[in-house]
Order: sequence, then C-alpha cells, then structure tokens
Amino acid sequence: MIPEKLVEVIKHEGVATIGTYADEKIHLSNTWNSYIVITENGKLLYPAGGMNVTESNIEKNNKVQMTVGSREVEGFHGPGTGFRINGTAAFIKSGPDLEKIKQKYPWARAVVEISIESATQTL
Amino acid sequence: MIPEKLVEVIKHEGVATIGTYADEKIHLSNTWNSYIVITENGKLLYPAGGMNVTESNIEKNNKVQMTVGSREVEGFHGPGTGFRINGTAAFIKSGPDLEKIKQKYPWARAVVEISIESATQTL
Repeated sequence: MIPEKLVEVIKHEGVATIGTYADEKIHLSNTWNSYIVITENGKLLYPAGGMNVTESNIEKNNKVQMTVGSREVEGFHGPGTGFRINGTAAFIKSGPDLEKIKQKYPWARAVVEISIESATQTL
Repeated sequence: MIPEKLVEVIKHEGVATIGTYADEKIHLSNTWNSYIVITENGKLLYPAGGMNVTESNIEKNNKVQMTVGSREVEGFHGPGTGFRINGTAAFIKSGPDLEKIKQKYPWARAVVEISIESATQTL
C-alpha cells in the first residue's frame, strides 16, 4: 500500500507538510521526514509538539492532504521526487504509540496518525 | 519585509509547499527551495510546470498558505527552521517575469507569484 519510493523518500531528511482546513482558513504544519514512522498497517505516525491549530482543525474536518519529497531520490524526470497523500488525520494522546514516540521525542504531546487513502507520486 | 533567515533557508535545497482551498477541497503543491526567487519588492516567484489544480483554486480563492524550511539552518531549538507564510498567489502567464524564468526553466508555463502578508518563523 505504501509505495517503495515513498519509503525511500522519508529516509532522506526534508520538510513534510500537512494541510488542514476549517473555519474558512487553510492551515499548514510541518514535520521532518526523519520523524515519520510507517506502521505495519500502513499508517504514518509523527510527533506533535505544538500543532494546536492542526489539532483543532481536524476535530472539525479530519480530511488532510500531505506532501513529502526529496531532491535526493530519483523521480520521473531525474533527481527529485515527491508524493501527494490524501487521507485523514487523528491526534493520539495516550497509549503505546505515544509512549513509544515519547522515548525518542520527550517533548511530544501527541502522535499525529495519518491514515492514507491515496499516495500519488507527483514528480 | 522578508526575514533574513527565510532568505538563508531558500539557499538550502528542500521541498516548499503551498496550500490552496476551493470547492471544499484542500490542495497542496510543491516547488524546490532552489526554484524560489525573491523579487526586489519582496514577492516570491517560482516556475509552474503543471500545478493546474493550484491555478484553478486560486482563481476562486487566492488566499494561500506556504511553508518552507531547512534542517540545515539554525532555528529556535537547534538545527532546523521553517516559516509559515500567509499571502495571496497569482499565476503570471506573460511578460518579463515569465520570460526570465523560462530562460532557466524552459518547461515553465507560468510564474507563481506569492505576495506575502506575513512570514512567521515556526521553529
């Protein structure tokens, strides 16, 4: 379900972005590619420190779009590729996923969990 | 108007993202930091190859949010910084800005012009 190339992308450091929308305002928040963990069942997890607007937006509208890419991974036209992911997001604020992520990122107040509906290579 | 640190960020390669919203759908599109040019009057320009959904969205709603960052530039908490930019976007499809960008990117069908309302360092 997760394309091999997407797995390769997040092995290279870079800025990943998720976009949410509520109350007639768009909001983007970021994580680093290196913070993203792919679960066995194909979800993406990463720590949330702040991300308060993202959290309040997804309480109203959990549909998100995410982009992740790397200039160092070969794409359709040479070096550089990226993905556009459609899915839903949830903030996990207790339980084993949070405890595990806190071991690496003690500042994490939650885990952002992205359930992927589609992941399209754009470049 | 453009923070010095933002100028520094775009000197480091990475994925920059703009988010648009129309017809109840969020849409993210990307460029490379290295493709972004800062004009004398403080706008951001970059080439559009495809970006058809972004263009059609901004015809309905030109308010965009953009994020750009680099792990290699010092932020508030050590290595890594990023900016969230609020502004408006326009597609420029003729004139000197397009001609200039086409010299470097012959595939450019338009120039995306971001007029910045705010640029906030987030990390």
